[in-house]
Amino acid sequence: MTDPAPLRRPHHDGSALYVADPAPRPGQRVRVRVRVPHASGVTEVHLRQVTDGEPEFRPATRVASDDLESWWEAEVVCHNPVTGYRFVLSGETSGYQWLNGTGVHDRDVPDAADFRLVTHDPPPDWALDAVVYQVYPDRFARSAAAPPVTQVAPDWAIPAGWDDPVTAEPHLAGRQLFGGDLDGIAEHLDHLERLGVTTLYLTPFFPAGSSHRYDAATFDAVDPVLGGDEALRRLVRAAHERGLRVLGDLTTNHTGDRHEWFVAAQTDPAAPERDRYLYDETGDYVSWLGVPSLPKIDHESTSVAERLFDAPDATVRRWLAGPDGLDGWRVDVANMTGRWGAQDVNHEVARRMRRAVQETRADGLLIAEHCHDHSRDVDGDGWHGVMNYSGFTRPLWTWLRHPGTAPSFLGSPLMVPRLGGAAVADTMDEFTALVPWRSRAHSFTLVGSHDTTRIRTLVESPDEVIAAAGLLLTLPGVPMITYGDEIGMLGSFGEDGRRPMPWDESRWDNRIFAAYQELIRARRDLEPLRRGGMRWVHTDDDVLVFLRETAEQVAMVAVSRAAYRLGVPARDLPGVDERRVVVGGAALQVDGDVTLSSDRAGVGVWVWSREVP
Amino acid sequence: MTDPAPLRRPHHDGSALYVADPAPRPGQRVRVRVRVPHASGVTEVHLRQVTDGEPEFRPATRVASDDLESWWEAEVVCHNPVTGYRFVLSGETSGYQWLNGTGVHDRDVPDAADFRLVTHDPPPDWALDAVVYQVYPDRFARSAAAPPVTQVAPDWAIPAGWDDPVTAEPHLAGRQLFGGDLDGIAEHLDHLERLGVTTLYLTPFFPAGSSHRYDAATFDAVDPVLGGDEALRRLVRAAHERGLRVLGDLTTNHTGDRHEWFVAAQTDPAAPERDRYLYDETGDYVSWLGVPSLPKIDHESTSVAERLFDAPDATVRRWLAGPDGLDGWRVDVANMTGRWGAQDVNHEVARRMRRAVQETRADGLLIAEHCHDHSRDVDGDGWHGVMNYSGFTRPLWTWLRHPGTAPSFLGSPLMVPRLGGAAVADTMDEFTALVPWRSRAHSFTLVGSHDTTRIRTLVESPDEVIAAAGLLLTLPGVPMITYGDEIGMLGSFGEDGRRPMPWDESRWDNRIFAAYQELIRARRDLEPLRRGGMRWVHTDDDVLVFLRETAEQVAMVAVSRAAYRLGVPARDLPGVDERRVVVGGAALQVDGDVTLSSDRAGVGVWVWSREVP
Repeated sequence: MTDPAPLRRPHHDGSALYVADPAPRPGQRVRVRVRVPHASGVTEVHLRQVTDGEPEFRPATRVASDDLESWWEAEVVCHNPVTGYRFVLSGETSGYQWLNGTGVHDRDVPDAADFRLVTHDPPPDWALDAVVYQVYPDRFARSAAAPPVTQVAPDWAIPAGWDDPVTAEPHLAGRQLFGGDLDGIAEHLDHLERLGVTTLYLTPFFPAGSSHRYDAATFDAVDPVLGGDEALRRLVRAAHERGLRVLGDLTTNHTGDRHEWFVAAQTDPAAPERDRYLYDETGDYVSWLGVPSLPKIDHESTSVAERLFDAPDATVRRWLAGPDGLDGWRVDVANMTGRWGAQDVNHEVARRMRRAVQETRADGLLIAEHCHDHSRDVDGDGWHGVMNYSGFTRPLWTWLRHPGTAPSFLGSPLMVPRLGGAAVADTMDEFTALVPWRSRAHSFTLVGSHDTTRIRTLVESPDEVIAAAGLLLTLPGVPMITYGDEIGMLGSFGEDGRRPMPWDESRWDNRIFAAYQELIRARRDLEPLRRGGMRWVHTDDDVLVFLRETAEQVAMVAVSRAAYRLGVPARDLPGVDERRVVVGGAALQVDGDVTLSSDRAGVGVWVWSREVP
Repeated sequence: MTDPAPLRRPHHDGSALYVADPAPRPGQRVRVRVRVPHASGVTEVHLRQVTDGEPEFRPATRVASDDLESWWEAEVVCHNPVTGYRFVLSGETSGYQWLNGTGVHDRDVPDAADFRLVTHDPPPDWALDAVVYQVYPDRFARSAAAPPVTQVAPDWAIPAGWDDPVTAEPHLAGRQLFGGDLDGIAEHLDHLERLGVTTLYLTPFFPAGSSHRYDAATFDAVDPVLGGDEALRRLVRAAHERGLRVLGDLTTNHTGDRHEWFVAAQTDPAAPERDRYLYDETGDYVSWLGVPSLPKIDHESTSVAERLFDAPDATVRRWLAGPDGLDGWRVDVANMTGRWGAQDVNHEVARRMRRAVQETRADGLLIAEHCHDHSRDVDGDGWHGVMNYSGFTRPLWTWLRHPGTAPSFLGSPLMVPRLGGAAVADTMDEFTALVPWRSRAHSFTLVGSHDTTRIRTLVESPDEVIAAAGLLLTLPGVPMITYGDEIGMLGSFGEDGRRPMPWDESRWDNRIFAAYQELIRARRDLEPLRRGGMRWVHTDDDVLVFLRETAEQVAMVAVSRAAYRLGVPARDLPGVDERRVVVGGAALQVDGDVTLSSDRAGVGVWVWSREVP
């Protein structure tokens, strides 16, 4: 899918550079454009779209041209809620080709990587400009007024001091209580602003039987250990006052076994809460991956739909409501939600939840956890996006992981391999092409999370952390940073990485912190990095170079995992003479060819103007 | 996906050689096996399956071995109706690999090509042994007692003599009435037996406004021009007496505008039939691709469901019922059925129709017309299979079409290219891997149909027709032969190919006929060709060589579009020394290497015994 000169291949993607209206209404005709470098040999372009299940073809028209390339245009008719389309290219020297989301193909290919236009209500626009900061409330900060942990610790908890190590026993790690609280986060919003992030995402804040709180005891109150409902309101208000948004985290797949619904259901078989859970053929309740403390919710229960989504005070709605409400939800174990055996109401749940979000907060965001191929679950009418582990995190890991580390990945017992950059680019392309561009653009990119090895532990040196951050903050998607990654926090696996944030800056890796700041600033300042199209320039074992482009501006990004030196023909990069250095982690010289180089892992970003013909 | 030595790569497919039970019940654990050539370097195998939306892994065990390969085994737990699975391969020299339906991959790949086990009721077993013969009733044979065409011709018809040419005007072709009838078919069942086919598939027999009858005027009677209901009963009875099965053809997407429902709906806006059709925002009825004579059915109408599927005398049921009933249906425009704008009840229609078929005739077959990527429409609980245009016909065309012809394909205005064999094999692999093996095995393979250019017109010489028939009758799938292809009938496009069958054998291409007979006999005699697994041996521009294998027997097939000579290491083909020639269109010599050769396009088939370790 990549080749030695990807800039000489025709290109289209779902960004505004190529699609006249990314949020069409049903029935609307949308102009789409393909850029066709003269060097490709392509002299004719047709559009194929699938309408009511049947392919139809229409010719594209050449609408503009300069000495490098032509632009062809055709109309997609959005007759169906999701319209797949792609292009047929032909020319005497180029032969027969298809152009879809994974690039140019010389033979017939299935429809999965077709481009897509979606007429469902679009996801919130603000998310395209967001940088998300994930906070694990127990481990981020203790407020000045926080009572001693020993005083507030529930029965399940093992109180710990802020500087204590996280226990090496994964099954005990969830019981360690460090006593972080929501007011502690509010008191450290300066840190978020200094870093440059725009959105705070809190892992669960409901009372539970663990520090991670994915085993909620109720969905109707904030854990008093975290400060209770009022503390959440104070935090959200303080965040909003600074222009920061706040996301919550909801377990739709299961509750905890201390949950008030589950206790009622177990206490009295006739309780109305009984039908909110799934039971197997023996009558035992079903639980998440067989973990007894996490009973699985039955989404065919109407009272679940009512309590979680539909009632005016349903969980999803009540925490979003009002000026001090959350700005959206991240959904835990979204991939398994509503699925058990022959039951599969996952899409119905996603649609219902989206409706609840939109009706309560028109610009609310809804992001699903999903750890593998999520394409079948992102139809454009449910989750706005996912945590893009498959199309970003995992390929990034296969490129950057230190050969000396052999981390496993989200429950897989199998080690992540180390692969070359071309394979990584192809993997990213293949997974991300499976969903509509806007779903990709609204999905969280992440180099890790509270559930994985920390990036600093995964790689050999801070340079490679900076390379990882480079990809995170320049590729399409909503970058999500797990608290602590920006200071080089370590952690060999999920629980191990949930370390208390050290506020003594002498314990920070300041070079990493400065790099995150610089990259976040670059993203904020450059529209192409937030909303541009995306074309590969060069991929090899150690270097990934790509463009993010709007109609006026080109940002070029070079990310490397080692020292390199490479050349790109200057004629493929018109305007590069007038470049400005945005992130200086690599050198760029123009002398006939454009030479890019660096003596280490890292990231360079340049920007220049170019008006599209 | 193919490489120079595909036999040295690990392999799995859905055939009985690799899957202990192809028709598991819900919850069943099914043993699956992978063959791992020692030359692959793979020394460890894990299974990955997706359960309730979450990947899980378990180690496979090496259960058998010989000097060529090892067999590894693991269990798939069929917790969901459709369970996707694949394998992780590792070894010091092989590195990190996935094995899925498109072969071995050195990086992460999405789930679309995962192998699949399905717990829905299996499709009918007999279809795996079937060879289908498609007959267009107006053009196959006139019975001895058939009245003159001029006497029976309806108002729309242009009577024609049996030896008249089909009109060159496509829009008039459907009005030409040659007067073939069902008794005529019954009188020529000898031809089917002589050819060796096992199943007669009739394009529509309902009264209509055209010779193709895809514009039905009723679903409740056989066209009197064809002999009426009794003639159908006689034909089916005669076929059944010979052990032949008979399939009908139903338009679920639309009716004709002469249909009794549509006439009632148009005559009286209050008629109960009104809601059986779709109307656009202006109040006009919706029609198939805008053709006014084909009004589109609204499958959200409960009376449609009742009349077509659910009532005891519903269309689907009544024609299947009883000993003289049909053995199944081919569904016209299945890909568009139930789809219009925001409405998409296609899968519900397919499931409902399958239930109607199964409840009426437990071993009834249900095959959907589908002209492009059908993977999203074949979930294992609706259509048993499709007309596999995308995974068989079109790739075959791209390989065999004469450079002097430039046929278009099923409504596409774009010409079919000519490509090399490796691209063709990759295309077949990629499309067919997207559906469960049993759906592939129950899908019609076809070199053309009443809707396309005739194969004899598409290629340069009879040799290439024989090559096409070679692929048709040896690859997985249910071969469907359009009447006349077996004698070299010509036709530049669909209507042009619907020529009256010449019963004067001096007008037949007897070499083509003999080749079809020989290949059909080979398929009948060799279980591997009907039920075996499938591995590529060699693919290059002009030659495709593959194995079909059961636990006891290996059939090797070599199909070429030109002269060739190639070698395969004999050690990769244990048992080849004891081969028997089944179809002699190529030479095979063993002398250290196995040398395959031919001086022309055509097909060779050999068989030998081999007990799997």
